[in-house]
Amino acid sequence: MTARPVSEIGAAVVGTGFIGVVHVEALRRLGVQVLGMVGSSHARASERAAALNLPPAYESFEAMLGDPRVDVVHITTPNHLHYPQAAAALAAGKHVVCEKPLAMTSSESGELVRLAQTTRLVNAVNFNLRFYPICRHLHQLVGEGGLGDVRLVSGHYLQDWLLLDTDWNWRLEPELGGSLRAVADIGSHWMDLTSHIAGQRIVSVMADLKTFIPTRQQPIGPVETFSSKTSGAATARTITTEDCATILLRYESGAIGNLTISQISAGRKNTLEFEIDGSTSAAAWNSEHPDDLWIGHRGRSNEILPRDPAILNAEGRAAAGLLAGHNEGFADTFKALYRAIYRAVAGDGPSEPDYPTFADGHESMLACEAVARSAREGTWASVERTAPTLPSPARGGG
Amino acid sequence: MTARPVSEIGAAVVGTGFIGVVHVEALRRLGVQVLGMVGSSHARASERAAALNLPPAYESFEAMLGDPRVDVVHITTPNHLHYPQAAAALAAGKHVVCEKPLAMTSSESGELVRLAQTTRLVNAVNFNLRFYPICRHLHQLVGEGGLGDVRLVSGHYLQDWLLLDTDWNWRLEPELGGSLRAVADIGSHWMDLTSHIAGQRIVSVMADLKTFIPTRQQPIGPVETFSSKTSGAATARTITTEDCATILLRYESGAIGNLTISQISAGRKNTLEFEIDGSTSAAAWNSEHPDDLWIGHRGRSNEILPRDPAILNAEGRAAAGLLAGHNEGFADTFKALYRAIYRAVAGDGPSEPDYPTFADGHESMLACEAVARSAREGTWASVERTAPTLPSPARGGG
Amino acid sequence: MTARPVSEIGAAVVGTGFIGVVHVEALRRLGVQVLGMVGSSHARASERAAALNLPPAYESFEAMLGDPRVDVVHITTPNHLHYPQAAAALAAGKHVVCEKPLAMTSSESGELVRLAQTTRLVNAVNFNLRFYPICRHLHQLVGEGGLGDVRLVSGHYLQDWLLLDTDWNWRLEPELGGSLRAVADIGSHWMDLTSHIAGQRIVSVMADLKTFIPTRQQPIGPVETFSSKTSGAATARTITTEDCATILLRYESGAIGNLTISQISAGRKNTLEFEIDGSTSAAAWNSEHPDDLWIGHRGRSNEILPRDPAILNAEGRAAAGLLAGHNEGFADTFKALYRAIYRAVAGDGPSEPDYPTFADGHESMLACEAVARSAREGTWASVERTAPTLPSPARGGG
Amino acid sequence: MTARPVSEIGAAVVGTGFIGVVHVEALRRLGVQVLGMVGSSHARASERAAALNLPPAYESFEAMLGDPRVDVVHITTPNHLHYPQAAAALAAGKHVVCEKPLAMTSSESGELVRLAQTTRLVNAVNFNLRFYPICRHLHQLVGEGGLGDVRLVSGHYLQDWLLLDTDWNWRLEPELGGSLRAVADIGSHWMDLTSHIAGQRIVSVMADLKTFIPTRQQPIGPVETFSSKTSGAATARTITTEDCATILLRYESGAIGNLTISQISAGRKNTLEFEIDGSTSAAAWNSEHPDDLWIGHRGRSNEILPRDPAILNAEGRAAAGLLAGHNEGFADTFKALYRAIYRAVAGDGPSEPDYPTFADGHESMLACEAVARSAREGTWASVERTAPTLPSPARGGG
Repeated sequence: MTARPVSEIGAAVVGTGFIGVVHVEALRRLGVQVLGMVGSSHARASERAAALNLPPAYESFEAMLGDPRVDVVHITTPNHLHYPQAAAALAAGKHVVCEKPLAMTSSESGELVRLAQTTRLVNAVNFNLRFYPICRHLHQLVGEGGLGDVRLVSGHYLQDWLLLDTDWNWRLEPELGGSLRAVADIGSHWMDLTSHIAGQRIVSVMADLKTFIPTRQQPIGPVETFSSKTSGAATARTITTEDCATILLRYESGAIGNLTISQISAGRKNTLEFEIDGSTSAAAWNSEHPDDLWIGHRGRSNEILPRDPAILNAEGRAAAGLLAGHNEGFADTFKALYRAIYRAVAGDGPSEPDYPTFADGHESMLACEAVARSAREGTWASVERTAPTLPSPARGGG
Repeated sequence: MTARPVSEIGAAVVGTGFIGVVHVEALRRLGVQVLGMVGSSHARASERAAALNLPPAYESFEAMLGDPRVDVVHITTPNHLHYPQAAAALAAGKHVVCEKPLAMTSSESGELVRLAQTTRLVNAVNFNLRFYPICRHLHQLVGEGGLGDVRLVSGHYLQDWLLLDTDWNWRLEPELGGSLRAVADIGSHWMDLTSHIAGQRIVSVMADLKTFIPTRQQPIGPVETFSSKTSGAATARTITTEDCATILLRYESGAIGNLTISQISAGRKNTLEFEIDGSTSAAAWNSEHPDDLWIGHRGRSNEILPRDPAILNAEGRAAAGLLAGHNEGFADTFKALYRAIYRAVAGDGPSEPDYPTFADGHESMLACEAVARSAREGTWASVERTAPTLPSPARGGG
Repeated sequence: MTARPVSEIGAAVVGTGFIGVVHVEALRRLGVQVLGMVGSSHARASERAAALNLPPAYESFEAMLGDPRVDVVHITTPNHLHYPQAAAALAAGKHVVCEKPLAMTSSESGELVRLAQTTRLVNAVNFNLRFYPICRHLHQLVGEGGLGDVRLVSGHYLQDWLLLDTDWNWRLEPELGGSLRAVADIGSHWMDLTSHIAGQRIVSVMADLKTFIPTRQQPIGPVETFSSKTSGAATARTITTEDCATILLRYESGAIGNLTISQISAGRKNTLEFEIDGSTSAAAWNSEHPDDLWIGHRGRSNEILPRDPAILNAEGRAAAGLLAGHNEGFADTFKALYRAIYRAVAGDGPSEPDYPTFADGHESMLACEAVARSAREGTWASVERTAPTLPSPARGGG
Repeated sequence: MTARPVSEIGAAVVGTGFIGVVHVEALRRLGVQVLGMVGSSHARASERAAALNLPPAYESFEAMLGDPRVDVVHITTPNHLHYPQAAAALAAGKHVVCEKPLAMTSSESGELVRLAQTTRLVNAVNFNLRFYPICRHLHQLVGEGGLGDVRLVSGHYLQDWLLLDTDWNWRLEPELGGSLRAVADIGSHWMDLTSHIAGQRIVSVMADLKTFIPTRQQPIGPVETFSSKTSGAATARTITTEDCATILLRYESGAIGNLTISQISAGRKNTLEFEIDGSTSAAAWNSEHPDDLWIGHRGRSNEILPRDPAILNAEGRAAAGLLAGHNEGFADTFKALYRAIYRAVAGDGPSEPDYPTFADGHESMLACEAVARSAREGTWASVERTAPTLPSPARGGG
């Protein structure tokens, strides 16, 4: 069977925020037809569609689902909508690319895994960081034993966009963002990325969560993610989700890990760092300088591997879009990720997905829930992997 | 008059190399209709179009010019074609975005400036580096006196893709690339970028050019830019263009400059660095870490300005596409540049172009020619700015 | 009363290893008379003394104590000797500068604190890192509220000199180095430095310790710290001390912390990093680039503060020995630390010690013991500060 | 013949400024007897000697020369005194370590070379930067062909301590510092260091010199180097020496070079950077992070070589004083340099000096004079090496 041309595949993007736009542009770069957006209101979606020179926005999520030209649905809405929208899209026969976290609970994410398995549709979670070419390269390198046995995985993910008590975003509201905030929003990226690269599943965690700003000023009206504008009028709101988390990790192989997460670290805009120490060599990466990989050695010079297609291994080279020295950024990871996903949609991918799936999204939910449990109880908590149960018929379809 | 929607503007890209693809993707991100490519052969263009999920390639350059849906022509062919193709496109009433260098000689580039003035069409040169948001910010900052009077502009542009005598590319052939190579290809970027940011025109130069590899092995068959593949069969070719250049600069205001250019610096993939030292403060930037600007001070801490839209000034913010910490790269500069250009195409831009025009491309040619003259004569050489003369009727149209 | 000239103060250094030499040189720079060394054998001490152009070595520790010209004793021996030697030196009326850890147990260190209080002699622990000028500057800055309230303290201390199972050092032997290894040797530095700078005492810890190399090859014969030479002949030894530690921290004020410690991180020679996130700004420092301080802000550029005496505050400036840009290193911290200590010895210091004392060394022992207890029990463990009890008469004097 | 113990060698330091103190401390670290200082006045020397816990200062330069215990004279006075003092010291049978520049003119420096040859005394110029262990390592590496043939040497040396018209120092006065300022003071370091490492003598230069601050305010009373204090009262002084220089270089082998020098680059405290591009690999170094060497490659990862004695080659290891990761700084280079020099003084060195000699200082003078000539005439200027003539009897002895 020949693969379908990507230019004949249609996609719709649900959600009109910052990240929705990044989805749209990456799809366009690949030549996918972006048929339209869905917004929290039709007016908002229409405004965004015009700004992006897109076709008219869909009237509603349901209207979009009813459009037979739509093959793939990208879900970039607030977290509480991921589960019902993903379930509904699968039920409508659409392939789904969903932002992380995949759901509000592991019960929901487990159901989505089952639904996806049943439908055999492409199901992906937007852990885009995996698709920095350097991260792909390192994934292969570690898998081939390039660092020896993995022993220690450490690092942090720091931001400052919620430093002040006047900073507001829907993620602060547990009913929209979930009961975990910093851990679910950015800690999930760190844990997914490092577990994926290190080839190590987390078995238990010991976490400390801290809400340094117990009361915040919620402005009247909507607020963009990362925006620092405040109109003035605001209401005091009690905050229950964490500003920071410190987490010890233990992996299946006996390796250990350590992670610091913060959304209140002044001057850190969006810094993910990790180091993986193996029995022979080590590797470190910083998301703010993503084209360089530090490789550490004993008894000889350390290395800086550039994102040079002539040097990268097969996985790294496949994700690279530009020549060496022509630096790639955040937006480029979406293109590389969707190239892999749409190859699968086109029926042209490898037999095993080479992109993050709902199963990875579910794994992430389980790790986050262990973090929450550990922090609540003040003890080590296991990541409780049970086979996802079949979704109850009543909920299927969202 | 209302501006035309960008989604109704049609573009064609001439040239199927590495950089042509970057043009295509940037146009798509903006929602411009990329109607097709033109290649050195129809077969090659068709192959590339399919890989990019584009409509079928044009049969020929002329066929493309004859397509009334094409409003804007992007020229990314080898240098010797820039002049005739740009001239023909203007003559056909198309707006033109041309890769640098704008032409093979300042005589040609001067003619293009005149043609463009006559036609009143949008004419742009692809000095994309100006559109790193940090560079835009710095342009405004310097213009506002943020560094005091500019005194010293120094730096380098280093690459290693022509380090070995087995490295080959059409730029090595003077008849295709011009009599200057490293200076025209990358030195032109450095001089344009720093002159633009510093608000300083170069008045004279003192240059030393060096060809360290006087004989290279030219493979049989075409070679991609930056590719390190060599098939085997090759012919020895004498090289007359420079591998390296060292250049002293003097500016109109009395400021001085210094520049090192090399395509044979092992380990440097594509590194442009500059520092501008003013009478009160200084600024430095490295293209491989483009989201950071170093600002130097006496008597207080130096600064690292992140590409944070909440901090950037108006010019910087206008070019920024992503939130702080979500790093932007090389490809993002094309999007930002074309956003400015297509606003002009749509009839919605400022009265004065806020993007590099053919006049800037001509200025760059004049500087390069002064470099060549200085090196040839071993003395300081002036940048000879004369009013571009009218194109001779015989050549008009290319 | 006038202070005694430093050139009239006599010192002796006990221990002939790498760090003993650093003590000797720093004392000489200050003009202190280094009267001699004491070694594990007279032969070894004599050899080292000759290499350093020092006077003949003392026959024994006791002979040194009997030399009335010796005012100050520097103890740089293996850890198990710190307590008896420090106690004996104090009993002999000598001022003491002791390497960390101050003792093998908090019981011992508590006794030393009491002894020192009784004798009113100068007692210092060699937490030299505090005396990087940038660290001194930051200590004052935090104390003045320059970062707002301290919230999160995170970082690591990584080395690779014990990466291989053929690496050997006395610190691996609990009877010489203590039951903790990486934590006591380098973790103690990190915890002391950050607690000191942040003005935050640790109240409880949650630690995970890991011995990745359970069996090592002990060579026959002595081994220098950090040396990678192996003569060949070796004996397999079971290792019980930790190669790595991951530690969550809680501070008195409600701040939290996180620390990774490793002696098996390939490529990391001796890297201490910390970041202190406050309610208004943040600061970060890396011991391998000690002359720079990163200061993070929201809504304005971050800062890089150079070790410029013209910019540093009073504490920083007092520790700086060279002009800006003339980088200071590890050895310079010893000079700055001893300048403060010997001012006290000379009777010329401030009323409160401005250098780390035995009380700080005891505090460090308590923190380390909490780490050990936490790791053993798998739970949070409190730092148990009880008033040090009077030394038992039997042991006084060591 | 057995070598004399270093502890029996006596030294005197002439000059009481910042750098004189660095000489004193380095000598003490090695165990050399620092017998005393000589100052511009006895009062000033006495004050400094007391602050340094040194023996009483010498009454005069002549008194010091008359002290038979003095074997080695370190000259750290303003530049115009170097020649007469060095000549006098040699005439008095003293070994000499002289600060750069060695003299005011190449005529003077040539005479010193002849005098030194005649007397067969140890004669050294304080080009301390060569003795950063990483620079020593690189010197050996290049000599062994580790980079292939040297092609391009580029970089800069930037400072900001003379940025403002209120900054003053004796180096601004031609009669004390010489007719070149920035070039002689810091450019000489860059040219010596890179020529030494690259094994390349400069044959011609093309320079542009610029005095951006033609009038400065000279304070009443003495001013310390790098001090930013201004008492208030000042006199306007016309400045004829350069603030900045840009210099093209050509080497014997056909290699080319490029150098920017500035003492008015805001935020740059004391930054020397160079890159040496060879036919197979490249190397780059930054004096502000002196323990790291960047080594660039094509087709494989770049390297960061740490100052790890276990990795360094013989030259690098010989200059290293501390274990890897325990960073060395500016002051440590003096210790390493003097270790080499005093081995020669002790009669224990290699047959050829392994430290910079008066011949190197003379070479530096010749290069600086070519720079001045080139700038004056606006053309390439040769470095005019003629065999130093015998000193005229009238001047011999200074």
